[in-house]
Amino acid sequence: MSDGPTEAGAAASRAGNAIDTHRLEAFSDGVMAVIITIMAFDLKTPVTASVHGLVSRLPSLLVYILSFTVIGIYWNNHHHLLRATRWINAAVMWTNLHLLFWLSLIPFATEWVGTAHGRTLPAATYGAIALGAALAYYALVRAILRANPGDADMASAVGKDLKGMVSPIVFIAGFGLAFVSPYLAYACYAAVSLLWFIPDRRLTNST
Amino acid sequence: MSDGPTEAGAAASRAGNAIDTHRLEAFSDGVMAVIITIMAFDLKTPVTASVHGLVSRLPSLLVYILSFTVIGIYWNNHHHLLRATRWINAAVMWTNLHLLFWLSLIPFATEWVGTAHGRTLPAATYGAIALGAALAYYALVRAILRANPGDADMASAVGKDLKGMVSPIVFIAGFGLAFVSPYLAYACYAAVSLLWFIPDRRLTNST
Amino acid sequence: MSDGPTEAGAAASRAGNAIDTHRLEAFSDGVMAVIITIMAFDLKTPVTASVHGLVSRLPSLLVYILSFTVIGIYWNNHHHLLRATRWINAAVMWTNLHLLFWLSLIPFATEWVGTAHGRTLPAATYGAIALGAALAYYALVRAILRANPGDADMASAVGKDLKGMVSPIVFIAGFGLAFVSPYLAYACYAAVSLLWFIPDRRLTNST
Amino acid sequence: MSDGPTEAGAAASRAGNAIDTHRLEAFSDGVMAVIITIMAFDLKTPVTASVHGLVSRLPSLLVYILSFTVIGIYWNNHHHLLRATRWINAAVMWTNLHLLFWLSLIPFATEWVGTAHGRTLPAATYGAIALGAALAYYALVRAILRANPGDADMASAVGKDLKGMVSPIVFIAGFGLAFVSPYLAYACYAAVSLLWFIPDRRLTNST
Repeated sequence: MSDGPTEAGAAASRAGNAIDTHRLEAFSDGVMAVIITIMAFDLKTPVTASVHGLVSRLPSLLVYILSFTVIGIYWNNHHHLLRATRWINAAVMWTNLHLLFWLSLIPFATEWVGTAHGRTLPAATYGAIALGAALAYYALVRAILRANPGDADMASAVGKDLKGMVSPIVFIAGFGLAFVSPYLAYACYAAVSLLWFIPDRRLTNST
Repeated sequence: MSDGPTEAGAAASRAGNAIDTHRLEAFSDGVMAVIITIMAFDLKTPVTASVHGLVSRLPSLLVYILSFTVIGIYWNNHHHLLRATRWINAAVMWTNLHLLFWLSLIPFATEWVGTAHGRTLPAATYGAIALGAALAYYALVRAILRANPGDADMASAVGKDLKGMVSPIVFIAGFGLAFVSPYLAYACYAAVSLLWFIPDRRLTNST
Repeated sequence: MSDGPTEAGAAASRAGNAIDTHRLEAFSDGVMAVIITIMAFDLKTPVTASVHGLVSRLPSLLVYILSFTVIGIYWNNHHHLLRATRWINAAVMWTNLHLLFWLSLIPFATEWVGTAHGRTLPAATYGAIALGAALAYYALVRAILRANPGDADMASAVGKDLKGMVSPIVFIAGFGLAFVSPYLAYACYAAVSLLWFIPDRRLTNST
Repeated sequence: MSDGPTEAGAAASRAGNAIDTHRLEAFSDGVMAVIITIMAFDLKTPVTASVHGLVSRLPSLLVYILSFTVIGIYWNNHHHLLRATRWINAAVMWTNLHLLFWLSLIPFATEWVGTAHGRTLPAATYGAIALGAALAYYALVRAILRANPGDADMASAVGKDLKGMVSPIVFIAGFGLAFVSPYLAYACYAAVSLLWFIPDRRLTNST
């Protein structure tokens, strides 16, 4: 920390008002940790202590699992992205807050889908918010690239960002399909999660 | 961390009971992260899964966006202020807690405006709390300046604090205008957010 | 932080896509801190300000103490496990999120048991979620071992994991006994907490 | 972090299973940050958007200010205590969790007093929980002293712990006086806060 000002000085000459990433990561971690936990808090206990009562909470639980996975994927990607980031500036901080804004709306969509999962509008709203988050993440990646010109680490970290381009398209498809059947929309959203989740493990197990 | 006591000893001879800033930042980050997320949690899901139901939540969403921006600006400014800070003492810790106190009341004002946006009192209360936070931030800046006498980094970080002086005045105007029309008050509060937000980006893109 | 990429490079040659543990710990801390606090938030204030009103909240308080201890034990074990961990990869990150998922359901089970402590299903659900968490922790330990092959620190940290194998069995017993009497189930869950808690102190005081 | 195992090894020869304090502080910060914010979340918005509606929330606001100050004092003291701490062990971790347990009950007492401030039982419950926290803090100080034998920094940090001994006595007095008049109890609790708060500032401004 003591060499912060000097490092910031060097950064300033490279990319404007550059600052270190630690507190950005800590704040984002805090917001995402609260989002995940608060969605679980939204799981209302069954009205009757019966199997029927428990089953009535199953849709809420399934959407919670979906949303938990979505936030988990963003946390994972955010972690990898920021690790490869050397310099951040005000544009990175604001695009990061913009991403957190869309993620903070996911508990709202999750609770709505959980209570009215057969209806069009909650399913479409979920897709719209997920699309907002996907576009915000894309904007964050671009802002970080602009703040770190000519950085090989960044380039390689972002190079494999094909999934980041496919995701918004599938969310748009899900949004549209919600007006046909909400369950088709949910299938799209779950497909995006699988898209991110499965190859990630494959990448690790192979070397 | 191992050289902490020695550093604290050196600090003590300069500015009383000085301590390092890390935990102050972590705690403030935690509080602000929870505030942002809990406001989103206050967004009640629509009673009916209809466009009408969704539209009825629009005022709540708009105030949420305003409050999210307000907290985002404070986090951003707090980040820059603490980065330029070398020594803190008990006065800094308490003025920081005082700022967090006012920020912690923003979800209360946000929820109230969201449910009664056409009424005078919620709009005025929002302004009063925002004014409290602005004055508390100003007091924090003064306390940090006193704890870091003759620090050039601090002086330059605080030198551009014209906005910090204009903000309280606009909040007072908003508070007063709430008794004419709450929507004039909201316009004032939004203007303060724009005041902080727009120049920040300009500063970064130029250089 | 500045030597991160180099360290990650060295790690990559050992265990795939290895990364440092700091942010994984910070995120897990955040989730567990919110879980603990949100359970306390679930403690509804008594309807009447009488001794009777306070006594009516006693079951909720007792389950809260149990769940607080459960989360406290996981935090403690997680802390020791991650301290002994040198390299993590995507599998570790996802098994860690999987553990947090099960822990995030504990407030749900806690609130349900608190409001219907004499019923079978809440007691069985609590056991099922606790079992899920225990198995998820076991999977996390295995994933960390695979990511840190031939690490003596890890081996010694995990060597004493007899309790980690006994816990799931007692949770299964508790789940089954809930169908006989929920109070037998609670006795099993409390026994697991004591199993972890008591020897921990003994280990420290002796040396 | 990379020299952690070695440092832990040295610690082990001094005080058993010693570990570094960073994650203990981060977790405690997280819990206290959520407690403070969740209490503000308990401030229900007025039923009517009138001065009468706002005034009806005044008792809740006053107890919130008291509880905010109590948590702020604990965070402040915890900060100073842990900064002077070199080694921690399992006993420190559990006594710290024990302190967090009592602090996590403060939102419960705060909400109860806020809704029934003229009644004996909420006022007495607040005192009992505050007493539990004060005793738990005392136990934490003792556990840290045992884990850091012959440490001059620790001795000086704890030497001025007269207030730590007076606080429980005033809380006991407040608990008893609640059965005479709840407002006498509140006066006692506020007095403890002033006891910690005022001299802290005096210490800083003089040098």
